[in-house]
Amino acid sequence: MLEKIKKIGVLTSGGDAPGMNAAIRAVVRSCSYFDVECVGIYRGYQGLIEGDFEVLTARSVRNIINKGGTFLKSARSKEFRTVEGRAKAFQKLKDAGIDALVVIGGDGTFTGAIYLEDEHGIPIVGIPGTIDNDINGTDYTIGYDTALNTVVDAIDKIRDTASSHDRLFLVEVMGRDAGDIALNAGVGAGAEEILIPEEDMGVERMMESLEKSRKTGKTSSIIVVAEGEKSGKNIFELAEYIGEKMVDYDIRVSVLGHIQRGGAPSCYDRVLASKLGVGAVEAVLRGESGVMVGITNKIVTSVDFNTAIKGTRPLDKELRRVLTITTV
Amino acid sequence: MLEKIKKIGVLTSGGDAPGMNAAIRAVVRSCSYFDVECVGIYRGYQGLIEGDFEVLTARSVRNIINKGGTFLKSARSKEFRTVEGRAKAFQKLKDAGIDALVVIGGDGTFTGAIYLEDEHGIPIVGIPGTIDNDINGTDYTIGYDTALNTVVDAIDKIRDTASSHDRLFLVEVMGRDAGDIALNAGVGAGAEEILIPEEDMGVERMMESLEKSRKTGKTSSIIVVAEGEKSGKNIFELAEYIGEKMVDYDIRVSVLGHIQRGGAPSCYDRVLASKLGVGAVEAVLRGESGVMVGITNKIVTSVDFNTAIKGTRPLDKELRRVLTITTV
Amino acid sequence: MLEKIKKIGVLTSGGDAPGMNAAIRAVVRSCSYFDVECVGIYRGYQGLIEGDFEVLTARSVRNIINKGGTFLKSARSKEFRTVEGRAKAFQKLKDAGIDALVVIGGDGTFTGAIYLEDEHGIPIVGIPGTIDNDINGTDYTIGYDTALNTVVDAIDKIRDTASSHDRLFLVEVMGRDAGDIALNAGVGAGAEEILIPEEDMGVERMMESLEKSRKTGKTSSIIVVAEGEKSGKNIFELAEYIGEKMVDYDIRVSVLGHIQRGGAPSCYDRVLASKLGVGAVEAVLRGESGVMVGITNKIVTSVDFNTAIKGTRPLDKELRRVLTITTV
Amino acid sequence: MLEKIKKIGVLTSGGDAPGMNAAIRAVVRSCSYFDVECVGIYRGYQGLIEGDFEVLTARSVRNIINKGGTFLKSARSKEFRTVEGRAKAFQKLKDAGIDALVVIGGDGTFTGAIYLEDEHGIPIVGIPGTIDNDINGTDYTIGYDTALNTVVDAIDKIRDTASSHDRLFLVEVMGRDAGDIALNAGVGAGAEEILIPEEDMGVERMMESLEKSRKTGKTSSIIVVAEGEKSGKNIFELAEYIGEKMVDYDIRVSVLGHIQRGGAPSCYDRVLASKLGVGAVEAVLRGESGVMVGITNKIVTSVDFNTAIKGTRPLDKELRRVLTITTV
Repeated sequence: MLEKIKKIGVLTSGGDAPGMNAAIRAVVRSCSYFDVECVGIYRGYQGLIEGDFEVLTARSVRNIINKGGTFLKSARSKEFRTVEGRAKAFQKLKDAGIDALVVIGGDGTFTGAIYLEDEHGIPIVGIPGTIDNDINGTDYTIGYDTALNTVVDAIDKIRDTASSHDRLFLVEVMGRDAGDIALNAGVGAGAEEILIPEEDMGVERMMESLEKSRKTGKTSSIIVVAEGEKSGKNIFELAEYIGEKMVDYDIRVSVLGHIQRGGAPSCYDRVLASKLGVGAVEAVLRGESGVMVGITNKIVTSVDFNTAIKGTRPLDKELRRVLTITTV
Repeated sequence: MLEKIKKIGVLTSGGDAPGMNAAIRAVVRSCSYFDVECVGIYRGYQGLIEGDFEVLTARSVRNIINKGGTFLKSARSKEFRTVEGRAKAFQKLKDAGIDALVVIGGDGTFTGAIYLEDEHGIPIVGIPGTIDNDINGTDYTIGYDTALNTVVDAIDKIRDTASSHDRLFLVEVMGRDAGDIALNAGVGAGAEEILIPEEDMGVERMMESLEKSRKTGKTSSIIVVAEGEKSGKNIFELAEYIGEKMVDYDIRVSVLGHIQRGGAPSCYDRVLASKLGVGAVEAVLRGESGVMVGITNKIVTSVDFNTAIKGTRPLDKELRRVLTITTV
Repeated sequence: MLEKIKKIGVLTSGGDAPGMNAAIRAVVRSCSYFDVECVGIYRGYQGLIEGDFEVLTARSVRNIINKGGTFLKSARSKEFRTVEGRAKAFQKLKDAGIDALVVIGGDGTFTGAIYLEDEHGIPIVGIPGTIDNDINGTDYTIGYDTALNTVVDAIDKIRDTASSHDRLFLVEVMGRDAGDIALNAGVGAGAEEILIPEEDMGVERMMESLEKSRKTGKTSSIIVVAEGEKSGKNIFELAEYIGEKMVDYDIRVSVLGHIQRGGAPSCYDRVLASKLGVGAVEAVLRGESGVMVGITNKIVTSVDFNTAIKGTRPLDKELRRVLTITTV
Repeated sequence: MLEKIKKIGVLTSGGDAPGMNAAIRAVVRSCSYFDVECVGIYRGYQGLIEGDFEVLTARSVRNIINKGGTFLKSARSKEFRTVEGRAKAFQKLKDAGIDALVVIGGDGTFTGAIYLEDEHGIPIVGIPGTIDNDINGTDYTIGYDTALNTVVDAIDKIRDTASSHDRLFLVEVMGRDAGDIALNAGVGAGAEEILIPEEDMGVERMMESLEKSRKTGKTSSIIVVAEGEKSGKNIFELAEYIGEKMVDYDIRVSVLGHIQRGGAPSCYDRVLASKLGVGAVEAVLRGESGVMVGITNKIVTSVDFNTAIKGTRPLDKELRRVLTITTV
């Protein structure tokens, strides 16, 4: 197998995450190190279908390790979800002489990769790049650590104004199906409560704890709310609901939104992306396919795509307990 | 006059702004330097009515120059808007032996000061502390420079993701009646357009310019929108409006909100706050009253409260032109 | 055992590290949660000898989770290195009714704890707080992640000016006996080379690689140098040495120094400190002593002090290889 | 005159400063706006001699407004200091059809421009880009505001560790001949003292103030030292000198160095650079030459090069007084 790989394509797909550029850089430089040609594919699977390719050299990726976003860009592609679209994509790869693919993204990215590999047999290795940290088979996804720092920094700013005015702040953070960001940033920012999907948002529990802390004289509070909730209340409705029950509270809402996706990656994310970028190319050259490289206990490991995207990671109950204890 | 002042009270009122702590510190230390006692009044005019006072020494204000918010806290006070409330407040000042007041805040703060001084004759000097930069008689208000840096830093992050996805972003910044933040941050962040109240938000002009830039192949854009608008469209309605007219655009909204008020003050705001804090105490000791100290061409000057709060500052047309030229 | 603990003392000792305040906060709040009294001991072992104590409540530690340094302060104590000094210290603990100690610091801190426990039998549990990450029995020490981000941010700034001027920069980072910071920050900042004690600084290898990259047209380079070296050349001598051999290079030196110890802790360090603070109090209440709580594969674990301070951690060879590959 | 200008060259020279890229961007886009061609000249006057040119369009300068350094690079040129060198440079300009130059830099840059214009009559307009703020005819130079924020942020970090350990820190900042950075950052960071060339570094005054503050129980101090001094003591000698006189002090030195030149520009610097970039092109098109555009009381103005580089700006005595008062 090893002899066959002469040219590797690399793309980013799905939501962008800080550290994606560092991962691309590591893929490109590993190719250079192992004397394999590297082709950058722009705009994810859509660019793959359109043949939007560029040869990348070690020089192409100078001074990008510290840049947020992805210079290869990302895009949604409806066409790639069809058999015909994927056939076109494969034809473009064949035409360009690309022997294998490294795809950087989240579960949508890996699902697409599963189809493409199944239907056309091209070797594909994935790298988990998403701020949501919702992929199995890796302790961390690229971008998650940076997003946590961005969230905590924003809540530090909000805390300044909350403390100055004796206010209750509801801060919405990303995490449609998982409360990881809310929980970790909640602990990190010293939030008084969190509302997360894993706990059905726990609105009533929060009301009780607000009541209790009001009685003990606490005058300002931060509640971190994961954006996706099952309780049916969005953050503005939630603010209204609390406001009706606790009329003397001055309640404000802050939706952190897209700033969570951007910014210079943290050192951790750059190191992780570098390790996984090298690991992905080595996996390809070892003949692996249909797998994602991840980090487990500081070691680069492989896990097949189906495992990576399947199932949900349980909430870190130990950390949940730490939050409860440290907000007495 | 100078001999009479033995004790000066200081308070912060209205929305908090980065640099307020630096201003309080300078007031306290100036008092110490000029051998005057300094009394901190908590929670603005409400704390004044309630006699929520604490004697402050040079030591009390150690290590606060770099902290956002205001450690004296701020609050709204309905009671202070009544003659009776102000009479109570004055009585508390008399009881505590406070001869003069330094008030840090915006136009609401100065309006309150005008009444208190008129009705009870106590000398009051103001310091402009608000991120909105909407006060006459000073080139800059404390907190404005920091807020601009916070906004620009946030838009830099949003730009990462906008560029990665070829998206149009509408970013709402503070400035209910004035487009200063939107204009300056728009230029600073390299935004493609701004919508500000001074120009009736110019939605149609923006649509034209979006059309034009789409034709020239520009794929991602940032539009900075001042929160207060006369056009009647809020930012989400605006997004919908654009989306209907330009169906192939991927439009996102980001409301920066309260993070704009917090954070460690910039060097400029700390220096400005230090100058104005010293200037305010010196003004009090010189026998001035009913005035705000401000900065004009780098010099500390005084202007009476009525001038400070009256009228609106015109938009910086020259800078508006710079934005137009640099976004060709 | 559990019944006996009614009052726990907490101190920080050795070099300060970002996240120490978050650890103190978690210790104090855990005490509160488990209905144990908590006493803060100022200035490490010196304050212990002097009885510089203060009772801390959940409120005492509000709004410190995001502050660098340690509000309990740290100090060196010659006296504590003597039997008499430690006897005095123990007497102060007895006088104050303190049943157990939580000590936050590095190997010097734990060495002191071993003596105190041996001689006087008081239960002591340690928390690893040092930017150097040089403690056994924990994957990370508190402060390390923040220090890496500070270093990488500083090198990003230096890269701006290096690229603008085609310069060679030697950047000295902390790490007297260990190259962990140099290696991780070197990968994270995209440095061209690192000089670390584990590799005898490898000056000649670096000269070769500089020669090679000059031939391929690389015009600016960053070399990260760990402060402690066995090669006998300090960073300024190193610059001179390189300058003599490569006369056409414009070489600059930057010693990052103490900025590496300060700053708001990263989210990771805050979360880690919170976990370990809770873990330390729980270990005390479980009857453990003479141990440090650390983090291993995301789980809080205990290791005895002698293991924690003994031996050196091997360099992460896998990451060393990643650096080599990604700087082709 | 206006008709004659069809092509404008732009270069950066001297030490790089944050905001130079924003200035280049504004020059390029103004050219585009006024239908003039723009040519980027790499590596300052050396690149001019070598004809290292590239045509720049509005697109060439996308996404650079927030980047530190200068993408046109800067270099020293001995050859340009000779009549022959400048003749070569002019020939390259003629060959390329460049009618006028915009040069971004400090006094060395403008001195070179004076010679080139005198000897060859080509119109040249300057933009002040240097972190030192040592140019006449402008209230601020591009990069100065960012450098102050970088310095203050670094001292905030050092303050964390100084407070934790009761230490005296000497922090060296840039400013070979001028104490502006030291003074402003000293006030902004709440430093206890500053040593600046304008006051012959005032070592003895500092010793007295240290003695005094030690007696009042102050336990940690920050002294900001401008790098260039007339006193003959560099910062390490200074530390030794203080250490000998005050033996119980724990003294540390931190040299901030090159991090002061890098980093994303502040909003102020981006806005200033944008204004001056537009102003420079408009000055060229109006037929001005031999002048620098600067900012005076928020208005873009012109001043001839000889005035810009001549004489020294007096120290801001008022701010010096503010520092004294606020460090009581």
